[in-house]
Amino acid sequence: MDKLTIYGDSRSGNCYKLQLLCSEMGTGYDWMEVDILAGETRTPEFLAMNANGRIPLLALPDGRYLAESNAILCYLADGSDFFSSDAFLRAEILQWMFFEQYSHEPYIATSRFIIRYLNRPPEREAELLQKRAGGYAALGVMERRLQHREYLVDDRFTIADIALFAYTHVAHEGNFDLKNYPAVMNWIDRISSRPGYTPMASP
Amino acid sequence: MDKLTIYGDSRSGNCYKLQLLCSEMGTGYDWMEVDILAGETRTPEFLAMNANGRIPLLALPDGRYLAESNAILCYLADGSDFFSSDAFLRAEILQWMFFEQYSHEPYIATSRFIIRYLNRPPEREAELLQKRAGGYAALGVMERRLQHREYLVDDRFTIADIALFAYTHVAHEGNFDLKNYPAVMNWIDRISSRPGYTPMASP
Repeated sequence: MDKLTIYGDSRSGNCYKLQLLCSEMGTGYDWMEVDILAGETRTPEFLAMNANGRIPLLALPDGRYLAESNAILCYLADGSDFFSSDAFLRAEILQWMFFEQYSHEPYIATSRFIIRYLNRPPEREAELLQKRAGGYAALGVMERRLQHREYLVDDRFTIADIALFAYTHVAHEGNFDLKNYPAVMNWIDRISSRPGYTPMASP
Repeated sequence: MDKLTIYGDSRSGNCYKLQLLCSEMGTGYDWMEVDILAGETRTPEFLAMNANGRIPLLALPDGRYLAESNAILCYLADGSDFFSSDAFLRAEILQWMFFEQYSHEPYIATSRFIIRYLNRPPEREAELLQKRAGGYAALGVMERRLQHREYLVDDRFTIADIALFAYTHVAHEGNFDLKNYPAVMNWIDRISSRPGYTPMASP
């Protein structure tokens, strides 16, 4: 075997990021479905591959592993037009990816997970409520950025857009309404209309 | 002026990361103190520089800005031995930096902030308690990684170490005890003994 293998849960936007980049790049891979709700990222076998017990996880043909969705995006896009050969633009792309993991994902993705996959248990209502302000703040930062540009960095479609598209385009599943974020909505349409686009296969 | 300017709060480990890298590299910069507790990252002036309202923020001599501590580390270390010229190693360094922002900082740094700078208000005790497991889990992942190596990636001191050192070496200020993490403690000693080291100037 000389193909890449991606361990992922099809319901996860973090995993979908890799599917979308591979679709855009025409990169083939084997997909190993890992059910996070069944605890499959916490088995000894999985922890031996990623001690942090999270998906997605990329396995290279030579046996090396790489974790963290956005680090994997950087690796797969290295040297391509989805990243950049300019040091400042690379850092600006990374800036949006760190923004995604720190200021966006913990609010919007986690709300979606609690509502859609945990069936909104009553004991987590207070947490959902607490996440509203942070989620809308993140959408506000994106709206401001996208008001006068087509994409987040360098007016080109890059892995910064992929990282933020993953959970933004399903924000409604976390009960976030995008109607006051027209630039974000247009950006979602723009990305979904690209020839290399593939939809999220979340069941 | 052709110097870099860093906007930062001296109490913040995220800002200290940049001070430590610049010390190691011998890079000069102007430091602009920004008091987050006084709301100085939420003024219209600051938000015009960084819409996400966070420090640290790097200002280049040409007027461009870069946010997110770990993205700034990547930019400053680009082309140096503190990053890597190998695509996989660069991604592995990024993996640890994303781990830091998602699985470490929200537990250990936030606990430290609540205890040390907000003076542990009673209404946040439950939150502090909830952060214990996540913080120790992150320390466990680091311990396992450092058991048989000197540094996190490629057995060299890189920006992955700087990103994780910043809040790990003051974890006790967040009430995290490192005594069961001997490899982490040795790694802290190793970094603090480097000739290019500079201590955190947190008041």
